[in-house]
Amino acid sequence: MDNRIDVERVRDETPGCRDLVHLNNAGCSLPPRGVVDTMTDYLRNEASLGGYEVQRDRSEQIAATYTSLASLIGARPSEIALADNATRAWDMVFYGMRFMPGDRILTCQAEYGSNAIAYLQQAKRFGVETTAIGNDPSGQIDLAQLERELGDGRVKLVSMTHIPTQGGLINPAAAVGALAESAGVPFLLDACQSVGQLNLDVRELRCDVLTGTGRKYLRGPRGTGFLYVREDAMDAFEPAVLDNGSAVWTSPTAYEMNPDARRYETWEKNYAAVVGLGAAVDYALALGMDAIETRVLALGDLLRRTLADIEGVRVHDLGQSRCGIVSFTVEGVAPDDVRCALADNGVNVSVSKSTSSQWDLPSRGLTSVVRASVHYYNTESEIEYVGSLVDGLR
Amino acid sequence: MDNRIDVERVRDETPGCRDLVHLNNAGCSLPPRGVVDTMTDYLRNEASLGGYEVQRDRSEQIAATYTSLASLIGARPSEIALADNATRAWDMVFYGMRFMPGDRILTCQAEYGSNAIAYLQQAKRFGVETTAIGNDPSGQIDLAQLERELGDGRVKLVSMTHIPTQGGLINPAAAVGALAESAGVPFLLDACQSVGQLNLDVRELRCDVLTGTGRKYLRGPRGTGFLYVREDAMDAFEPAVLDNGSAVWTSPTAYEMNPDARRYETWEKNYAAVVGLGAAVDYALALGMDAIETRVLALGDLLRRTLADIEGVRVHDLGQSRCGIVSFTVEGVAPDDVRCALADNGVNVSVSKSTSSQWDLPSRGLTSVVRASVHYYNTESEIEYVGSLVDGLR
Repeated sequence: MDNRIDVERVRDETPGCRDLVHLNNAGCSLPPRGVVDTMTDYLRNEASLGGYEVQRDRSEQIAATYTSLASLIGARPSEIALADNATRAWDMVFYGMRFMPGDRILTCQAEYGSNAIAYLQQAKRFGVETTAIGNDPSGQIDLAQLERELGDGRVKLVSMTHIPTQGGLINPAAAVGALAESAGVPFLLDACQSVGQLNLDVRELRCDVLTGTGRKYLRGPRGTGFLYVREDAMDAFEPAVLDNGSAVWTSPTAYEMNPDARRYETWEKNYAAVVGLGAAVDYALALGMDAIETRVLALGDLLRRTLADIEGVRVHDLGQSRCGIVSFTVEGVAPDDVRCALADNGVNVSVSKSTSSQWDLPSRGLTSVVRASVHYYNTESEIEYVGSLVDGLR
Repeated sequence: MDNRIDVERVRDETPGCRDLVHLNNAGCSLPPRGVVDTMTDYLRNEASLGGYEVQRDRSEQIAATYTSLASLIGARPSEIALADNATRAWDMVFYGMRFMPGDRILTCQAEYGSNAIAYLQQAKRFGVETTAIGNDPSGQIDLAQLERELGDGRVKLVSMTHIPTQGGLINPAAAVGALAESAGVPFLLDACQSVGQLNLDVRELRCDVLTGTGRKYLRGPRGTGFLYVREDAMDAFEPAVLDNGSAVWTSPTAYEMNPDARRYETWEKNYAAVVGLGAAVDYALALGMDAIETRVLALGDLLRRTLADIEGVRVHDLGQSRCGIVSFTVEGVAPDDVRCALADNGVNVSVSKSTSSQWDLPSRGLTSVVRASVHYYNTESEIEYVGSLVDGLR
């Protein structure tokens, strides 16, 4: 187990660690005290001085959120746009694309439900077809099939979820990015579950667009997300919608989009959440994304082994590389009942259902799974405790 | 002056009233203490228990925000959708419309910049044409011209800003709604500046869709907005984007939109802001929208008269009915310099520029105006003080 993270200190700085075992980090993790203080301080400042006035006073603090996010993923600040959540960030690029009948989107079997619904909505409007590339024997996206399908000349977008909501799989994003790049097809990476969990570098991932959220592994506020758009790809897309924050109304009949990624933003934002997100990213950067990734993956592995050793428990995670999300079922106990039983004992987990993964869980004979997702502030003894609780369920 | 609002009490409950004269209520008003407390309490609760867990625990408090907004505008809770701001609420309907070349949108000269940019963007994509109906002699939308243009059979949408950002005009929304209804054309009303300032009733306004914000006259949090969609009009529009909050992914190839207005929402929200918005609406409802409207309009009128009486000051508000927003210029002093000089004396105002009103200010020979916007917590003596400061500027 990696020791570079001072677990006692991060737990001291996390009020939620005191009274509960939080294994719902893939849902919404527990923020450090400093993130909440940053937000409440900002809100009280607004109430004293006025919202627009504080926004002007704190312009440097607000700008720092962009710089921090850029550092986090190896981007430039001008390649970052803020959004109200990861889905809206993703929408701003995806829904701006003008597809023609016969155009194709390639995605993965583990694709996130919101994205899939978007593909289906645009299929109705534009006749664009979406293909979910199958899994290879390990359960990750089949790179050979992806390469074949990319060869047909009709593919306008590769769009993939890096880590699915419903399991421990880490899809091989950099390999997918390399194949898309070779084929000259834009690559949109939904990194909602990987940002803050894995050490990401957009140049290595070779993605044109990456979207992430604040509330999950980054430990930031709810209602925050962001978008990375590669500088060279800025004009390859058009924002789905524009307003007077993303563009300037220059004359009665004309507007000019912002030159940088802020063309994807809306003018109005929850600035308390913006500075809270900045504080969360800075907290992660101070700990170091390498150290975070090492510990999250190790704790995920420990939880997976602990659960797999229990009779009647099946772990359902796929792929060659696995993350801090662990999906499992308990023989004879419905996943919702497992969740409630754990909650009664002070353990937060969640349940992933086929409605968020119609191309994945049903094809594996599953309708829902318990999802336990660790963060670096969880401990080995918490995992042991959860193992004993699950063992007692049958 | 209407006395139904206990001004001393509302000022006591508004920390920002203590040290400054806030006349930037059309930008972002000062929240009551209870709104900030509701948010900070929610944020601390999330940090202790987990974001999803608190959302489950507080489902009734969250639902109450919809009920309160519905009460505010005479709607049903099922006709309300929450959004991250008013522009995004508006976008969700407008950008969902599929226009054909030659289709027309009718709007007003005082239209808000964000909306105008959206018309121009969709003109490029779909060839839809937008006509800004001229002003009548009072400066409000010319109802006779609107009626004539509605007769040409090509109009697919009437879309109008109720109260413009750059002045005191109140457009005759109910009359516009009646004309649109007679012509069988949907009516989208941008009520960003009127919600919380005027006593609105969507049945009287005869709008199919209304959008509003939290941070302006409602005294709610930044990063909040909402959408009203009339129940009978629910299927006349399609949400611009869908996700697994607005729809359910029912099978590998199908989804079902939510039956009610929540089909326009995104799954993820800043719930601290949602409950803060609910608290702000409840505060307005407790005071009574009639009393609020009466006082805001009376204070606006007093400020307008105070400024107009100063030599070298010109008030630029148009229309038959005027609101709490007052636009003016001072001879020989640039609007930005007026703003700074007032700020140095503890008075917050803002400046409206032609970039947010290209169809309005330039046609009146203006490039920018000072905007002073009152709320019910402002006082007659504050207005007198501001008048004396402006008088001293020349």
